[in-house]
Amino acid sequence: MEILEGKQCVLPALQARLRKFKLILIKQGANAPYIHEIITAAEAQSIPIKFVSATELDAMTKGRSHGGVAAICSAKPATEIAAVLEGIQNSNAPALLVLIEGTEDAQNLGYTLRTAEALGAHAVLLKKHVWNFEGTALSRASSGAFERLPLAQVENLEKDLLPLKRLDVKFWGCIGGAKRDIYQADLTQPVLLAIGGERRGLSGAMRGMCDGFIRIPMIAGASSLSLSHAACIIMAEAMRQRLAAKPPGAVSADEIALDKP
Amino acid sequence: MEILEGKQCVLPALQARLRKFKLILIKQGANAPYIHEIITAAEAQSIPIKFVSATELDAMTKGRSHGGVAAICSAKPATEIAAVLEGIQNSNAPALLVLIEGTEDAQNLGYTLRTAEALGAHAVLLKKHVWNFEGTALSRASSGAFERLPLAQVENLEKDLLPLKRLDVKFWGCIGGAKRDIYQADLTQPVLLAIGGERRGLSGAMRGMCDGFIRIPMIAGASSLSLSHAACIIMAEAMRQRLAAKPPGAVSADEIALDKP
Repeated sequence: MEILEGKQCVLPALQARLRKFKLILIKQGANAPYIHEIITAAEAQSIPIKFVSATELDAMTKGRSHGGVAAICSAKPATEIAAVLEGIQNSNAPALLVLIEGTEDAQNLGYTLRTAEALGAHAVLLKKHVWNFEGTALSRASSGAFERLPLAQVENLEKDLLPLKRLDVKFWGCIGGAKRDIYQADLTQPVLLAIGGERRGLSGAMRGMCDGFIRIPMIAGASSLSLSHAACIIMAEAMRQRLAAKPPGAVSADEIALDKP
Repeated sequence: MEILEGKQCVLPALQARLRKFKLILIKQGANAPYIHEIITAAEAQSIPIKFVSATELDAMTKGRSHGGVAAICSAKPATEIAAVLEGIQNSNAPALLVLIEGTEDAQNLGYTLRTAEALGAHAVLLKKHVWNFEGTALSRASSGAFERLPLAQVENLEKDLLPLKRLDVKFWGCIGGAKRDIYQADLTQPVLLAIGGERRGLSGAMRGMCDGFIRIPMIAGASSLSLSHAACIIMAEAMRQRLAAKPPGAVSADEIALDKP
């Protein structure tokens, strides 16, 4: 069981119906409009509600701002890869997927989900060996995006990702040493953006599956970007390109010879 | 006194010579190349070095990875606005400044500094009322960028920022409700990007000083972006525009009528 805190987590979790709720806790006297929304959603699903003191709620929660609401519920199950495939096939937009091979902490991963949702990603794919986050912390850091955005677990790169290739999704590996920068890639096509962990980078197995490689231009001598900020810049560039036309001179993954580093 | 931990903080802090060092602590037997760099830098500045046990170092530090090095030193002083002005006048690149009116925590601010440095910002300006971070946590979260990048304190918007206007720096306010998106602004000019806190947004006083307003396009229904990710996307767009030509159709702050929201 996990404890979700704050309306930005509890309300979307109730709406998504992917967690099994045991109890909704509401601070006695709380009267914000979202409290009523949560009560209505909980009652519609016959989930028990308990009104508790502020002290009791504070003792149960970790974050600074539960805002008078928390929930005891099951963990959110991982999205099946099949559901991700279905999602991109049913979408009006070309696929935008992010595969993450390493994360520093729940906060960084949570921010990545929050940004991915805001920038139009269909799903985030996470390698199984980094699937070790605490759902409560992740949901809080993601500001609830974790409850809405599909997060799929990738156990076997070949088996799980080949179906995406059959749907013509192009795999771009994001690595510091790539010859091309992100502005030279056509991200208006269906794409999977593969981003390595901050310490180890992209795995050899994942590099082997990439159609091309891109880097984020940066000032020499600066620290590298965090994973969530690197992912953010590339997804924002995909958003920019999709809002505009294909940028002049941008190459598609098909057009380029593989420039494996 | 603050405790800096890890070579990514200690080494740039030694190089910047802005903190007064009392003692450098090095784990007995530590032998990485950066240990030698730190010893050389400390000796050149006659800073005492103490070799301590791993247990002693762990007890003094908070982060997960001090990597065998820590330092006891004074806080890094705020950069004077005059030094920021001098910095942009001596730079080959058009000014890129970020003004932040609110931060959630040291981690978010630290990430903002890290990203600002990587994307070529000359300085980050922080309103005085949010100047309440712990330097140790900030330096760690910034991966050392805090030691290198000027962080200036803004006490009085008019007094501190008018000299920038006299240098022809255009002030863009980043707000969700702006008519123009970030791709419609000419960010190749000298710019100050004003970004409000996640809770309160941009202040009326700051809005009053802006030459124009821009928003980041986002998917409807998603959570808002965190401050550090919003700043990241706009700075990356400035970097993109500066690497390329001025985008077709982009308007400069001079060309537009004020579209104050």
